[in-house]
Amino acid sequence: MRGARADLAAIREIAGAARVLDLEDADPVPELAALLGAEPFDDFSALPHLRWVHSAAAGVDGWLASGRLPEQVTLTSAVGNGAIPLAEHALMLMLMLSRDAPRWARAQSRRSWERRAHGELAGARLGILGYGNSGRDLAAKALACRMEVRALRRREGAVRDGGVRLLRGPDGLRELLTTSDYLVVTAPRTAETAGMIGAAQIAQLPPGAAIIVVSRGGIVDEDALLAALRSGHLSGAGLDAHAVEPLPQDSPLWDAPGTIITPHNAATTAGTARRGRQIMLENLERWVRGQELRNVVDRTAGY
Amino acid sequence: MRGARADLAAIREIAGAARVLDLEDADPVPELAALLGAEPFDDFSALPHLRWVHSAAAGVDGWLASGRLPEQVTLTSAVGNGAIPLAEHALMLMLMLSRDAPRWARAQSRRSWERRAHGELAGARLGILGYGNSGRDLAAKALACRMEVRALRRREGAVRDGGVRLLRGPDGLRELLTTSDYLVVTAPRTAETAGMIGAAQIAQLPPGAAIIVVSRGGIVDEDALLAALRSGHLSGAGLDAHAVEPLPQDSPLWDAPGTIITPHNAATTAGTARRGRQIMLENLERWVRGQELRNVVDRTAGY
Repeated sequence: MRGARADLAAIREIAGAARVLDLEDADPVPELAALLGAEPFDDFSALPHLRWVHSAAAGVDGWLASGRLPEQVTLTSAVGNGAIPLAEHALMLMLMLSRDAPRWARAQSRRSWERRAHGELAGARLGILGYGNSGRDLAAKALACRMEVRALRRREGAVRDGGVRLLRGPDGLRELLTTSDYLVVTAPRTAETAGMIGAAQIAQLPPGAAIIVVSRGGIVDEDALLAALRSGHLSGAGLDAHAVEPLPQDSPLWDAPGTIITPHNAATTAGTARRGRQIMLENLERWVRGQELRNVVDRTAGY
Repeated sequence: MRGARADLAAIREIAGAARVLDLEDADPVPELAALLGAEPFDDFSALPHLRWVHSAAAGVDGWLASGRLPEQVTLTSAVGNGAIPLAEHALMLMLMLSRDAPRWARAQSRRSWERRAHGELAGARLGILGYGNSGRDLAAKALACRMEVRALRRREGAVRDGGVRLLRGPDGLRELLTTSDYLVVTAPRTAETAGMIGAAQIAQLPPGAAIIVVSRGGIVDEDALLAALRSGHLSGAGLDAHAVEPLPQDSPLWDAPGTIITPHNAATTAGTARRGRQIMLENLERWVRGQELRNVVDRTAGY
């Protein structure tokens, strides 16, 4: 077993008689049965007894990319740990884009008083791509901001969740795109979502719409996004997750029109760490007791 | 009668047989009985028949400052017209302050990828000074952001409003100050609120707190605010309303630590204009029919 160093004491207490290794100090041993909070890797040949991997991150695309994680290993994730700050970040980006806050910041740096008309979120239409923990949390915040909220999800189910209209499939994606003044991507990167929003999809958004990405890069095609920002079809973008990270210094997105860039940093909070630790320790307790684990990854779905 | 030029047609239709003057073209006539949407002035000697003034702005401190508005004139206001964008602006400023968004903006301008830990609004404590239209709207948004919400109000009444704890009086102000990670000023400027938050009150805020002002300047003492920002007692401020406007070029607030300045611009939206027009035309209809007007200003309270 292993875990973030600060969690070792708690892990040892829950693990009881089991041996707990700090892999920052020691190499894995062949008996290793569970791995908590490690960075993704893809050579499992030296670990024949491995049965459980718990990802300290919510996204497990790194663990699944190689396809080499052995069948008998259960993969669980911290999914949900960063949902709240991700939703807060998406809301902040929408608010900033709705009134072009960066323009006030530039005026402030010149000590310049520049009043102008701007927009409101109230009455605007939000489309959420992915209706997991962060998508649902964002929807609640957006409803409090009097937005009209739609969300596209993969799983079958109800067509409404309180004030949120739930969509599915190609028709659902079309409705989402044609009715979204703000399109917020909260979906995981999977085989299904990679490249899902290309030039044709962006063209279906209403003129003046904005795209916000807080989950993973690579879902929105960045070349198509850039072209739509430059043509003026999109009024702006708020991008925390990027196809290549760190975003290369020569990326034209850094100064694309109306674009706010943050460095995949939306969920880097003490709250995310605390909630992630709770999820990990609760799963460890379940594992020690032989109970069903939570946040088990569906490898076919990719999350 | 007069009104914003774009509203003249609607005003004429509702006013029926009454004569409607566009005061951008004509001087007021002595028979003038109602004045819609004029800028504040203080010489009413030429208007002996004036009975009603409707302020196109929510704040009426300008109309009341001279104390010369005749007793027999009913003053109504557009209060409520900008509540939604004011609350949105306050929420944006809290989100930006919670994660020092201006620092990311500076990094973006250098094409620099600078990850760091930051805060969340979830779990933080919001204190709202003034529980009118914008205060209530902000409270609903903050609850959706999982904040703990208290509000101070002048009027007597219940001690709770849903998830919001309502406070009154000197003890209430003390509780508000000692428990607010974010203090948001949404109150009108009146004899009671002018200078209400000075050095002694700011000292009662928890270290690291932030102050946001979206209603009127002059309620928070700007010298005391500046000192607390410079000492580090306050982590930041978000200021849309200022004691002197435009904020003078040599004001030290422009580059005070952690401070976001916007140019009294929070509510400058099409929605505010639309809602203000609705309020004015509804009141005109009531006036023509001899019904009780809405948004009548309590001159003693000052709003």
